Amino acid sequence: MKYTEMTSEELKAEKAQLKKEYEILKSRHLDLNMARGVLSVEQLNLTQDMLGVLKTQDDCITENGTDCRNYGLLDGIPEAKKLFAEMLDVDDDELIVGGNSSLNMMYDTLARHMIYGRDGVNKPWATQGEIKFLCPVPGYDRHFAICESLGIKMINVPLNEDGPDMDEVERLVASDASIKGIWCVPKYSNPTGTVYSDETIHRFAKLKTKADDFCIMWDNAYIVHSLYGESAKQMNLLKEAEKFENENTVYEFASTSKISFPGSGVAVLATSKANIESIKKHISVQTIGADKLNQMRHVRYFGSLNGILEQMKRHSAIIAPKFKLVDELFEKELSKTGLCTWSKPEGGYFVSLNVPCGCASVVYSKMCDLGVKLTPAGATYPYHNDPTNSNLRVAPTFPPIDELEIATKALCLCVKLATLDILTK
Amino acid sequence: MKYTEMTSEELKAEKAQLKKEYEILKSRHLDLNMARGVLSVEQLNLTQDMLGVLKTQDDCITENGTDCRNYGLLDGIPEAKKLFAEMLDVDDDELIVGGNSSLNMMYDTLARHMIYGRDGVNKPWATQGEIKFLCPVPGYDRHFAICESLGIKMINVPLNEDGPDMDEVERLVASDASIKGIWCVPKYSNPTGTVYSDETIHRFAKLKTKADDFCIMWDNAYIVHSLYGESAKQMNLLKEAEKFENENTVYEFASTSKISFPGSGVAVLATSKANIESIKKHISVQTIGADKLNQMRHVRYFGSLNGILEQMKRHSAIIAPKFKLVDELFEKELSKTGLCTWSKPEGGYFVSLNVPCGCASVVYSKMCDLGVKLTPAGATYPYHNDPTNSNLRVAPTFPPIDELEIATKALCLCVKLATLDILTK
Repeated sequence: MKYTEMTSEELKAEKAQLKKEYEILKSRHLDLNMARGVLSVEQLNLTQDMLGVLKTQDDCITENGTDCRNYGLLDGIPEAKKLFAEMLDVDDDELIVGGNSSLNMMYDTLARHMIYGRDGVNKPWATQGEIKFLCPVPGYDRHFAICESLGIKMINVPLNEDGPDMDEVERLVASDASIKGIWCVPKYSNPTGTVYSDETIHRFAKLKTKADDFCIMWDNAYIVHSLYGESAKQMNLLKEAEKFENENTVYEFASTSKISFPGSGVAVLATSKANIESIKKHISVQTIGADKLNQMRHVRYFGSLNGILEQMKRHSAIIAPKFKLVDELFEKELSKTGLCTWSKPEGGYFVSLNVPCGCASVVYSKMCDLGVKLTPAGATYPYHNDPTNSNLRVAPTFPPIDELEIATKALCLCVKLATLDILTK
Repeated sequence: MKYTEMTSEELKAEKAQLKKEYEILKSRHLDLNMARGVLSVEQLNLTQDMLGVLKTQDDCITENGTDCRNYGLLDGIPEAKKLFAEMLDVDDDELIVGGNSSLNMMYDTLARHMIYGRDGVNKPWATQGEIKFLCPVPGYDRHFAICESLGIKMINVPLNEDGPDMDEVERLVASDASIKGIWCVPKYSNPTGTVYSDETIHRFAKLKTKADDFCIMWDNAYIVHSLYGESAKQMNLLKEAEKFENENTVYEFASTSKISFPGSGVAVLATSKANIESIKKHISVQTIGADKLNQMRHVRYFGSLNGILEQMKRHSAIIAPKFKLVDELFEKELSKTGLCTWSKPEGGYFVSLNVPCGCASVVYSKMCDLGVKLTPAGATYPYHNDPTNSNLRVAPTFPPIDELEIATKALCLCVKLATLDILTK
């Protein structure tokens, strides 16, 4: 019987029973973590052999004769450009291969706009008074943190099943020149697992913005990260935007953080050729260039996009059962509340869980008390402000499956208790 | 006989002879490079074995149990902090171990001041109108490029034999709050090889600045890079500045670019504990953290500061003969002009050559015509503007010694020709 169909007495009895279970669990002094999209040790071990792939001097020389051990090649080695251009389906000269962090490339992209402005516009954002970004919600906390840090005001936009609410996006950007961009995770969104539809991408490609320095921050973090079989096919935003001479608005990011190693992967930025030239001018001042040996390691180890896709199958063989377990436990434990919903992602690293309004922060603190780390309630919204206090992000990949089962059961228990608190108030 | 003692006829005869030599050299179609402080292949090979030093999972785990392959440890692994704290003679918590580029850490340090301002001052430089930096000259072109890129006006300050002209520095910063910093390469300066005296460092430590967000950009790029025997001992600026509660002005940088690999080294930033805390706050938004596996590679390979110093001996065994050769050729060929001077560095990567006023750009273009790449004339001054057009930076490390001999002889020839052009005008 669902909670929504229970009598007041039945609810009280259920609550008393669950409270006992909670106390027992608490006495076990758990120390578990399902807070962030971190790779498990088993996944990290998949790529161990990459660390030994560069041995001789010859292993370090690129096809154009550059010694990766020395200075040079600001925008990446040609082999890495080819590999990642294939992955993103862009041209080699629409790409910069960077260091180990796509987040750093996103931050730097916005910091450049703050300090220098866009080439051809050249009004630094820092001098334009209040500027704003659109944030489809729920979304990725680290995107929001960049805007907050740079003093960019964030405006929530609903994330629907086929991507951001494009009517709302089009309406807002058409009339307000202070809206300078939007954050998007187009495939297997963090945290909802949403896959943007081609119609959504098409509307982004032809987006008419009042601002002439608008940035579509297209974080394709999970571009090859399907859980079950082949990765979802999607329209290519950069190519589509070219049709509408809108390619200078597109900044696409990806990395191998969840393909090879989160701490030591390779990040890439794809954008229009004009933007690439402008960015190269700036980074030639900023840095001596990214770590080319690490780029070469990736090239020699993966060989081609196919090599990457094969590795992704091995990753999903490890993590898909974890997503399945979470879904099964939610189905078994949370269906009965009649008041919870959760995403059933086909890829990516997260499950988005919606609990009754007002309950998310209660669940989070109950979980803390049990010794299970969860992404803090509110993290999926700008300024940590979830207006209905109902969304939680679940990250099932890191814990071994037996620990994940304990952690997820604990989560279900906390959700049910928080729900009953409300229903019995 | 020196040019300055020759008759007009003798000068003309000498010039006619050298012109012939020049034409013969030109017909050889040289393709040589002494433009930048790049490591030779022989030097790169010294560190080849570092690439294979991480093999098993255990090799990737830090002493505090962090898996370097995964996310985490924003400011560096503990072992790398220890190693570089020893090298810089600072505390572990006065240090951030970063990515592969100290230049990037310098740029980011100034970019943070532009966007956020200094903690406790909090007036972003971008909002303060015109701001300025002091630049000891001749100096490092990439430092100047950062200021130029950020729109920071540069003011030349003479670099004397014991460091910047401190009377001038003290006078300027005492009264002008828009002067926000100074670039320094305190040991084996680029390009002069100058070693700042302890008296100079002491005066920096107690520097009284009108600006309350002043930055001493202390680029200790050549801290262990002596050419002959032990590296010069110097007063520690950060420690000395603490005595005058001035430690928040000190930002010290170093890297292993010229210890291990220029493209794939490890960079560090040392500053006050308060600054470290403030910077960590910002970089936690900017990045997932630097490449910890590469930090671990350096730790496992070098082991200790002693391991680094041993490696530096092997480097100097390769490059010291190159510096000796340049000096010998200059002595043999340029002494006779009576109008050239050059540095005799005890460390670092450059020789600074002063030719007669107005001649540097002439020498540079003559060298280009011969097919020998030199650092462009003017590069050692802000805005590429060498007021007397007389300074050239010579970088002897990259070419094999036989090529270096040809290139240096070519340089001497061009210098003599340019000098004779003036003397016979």
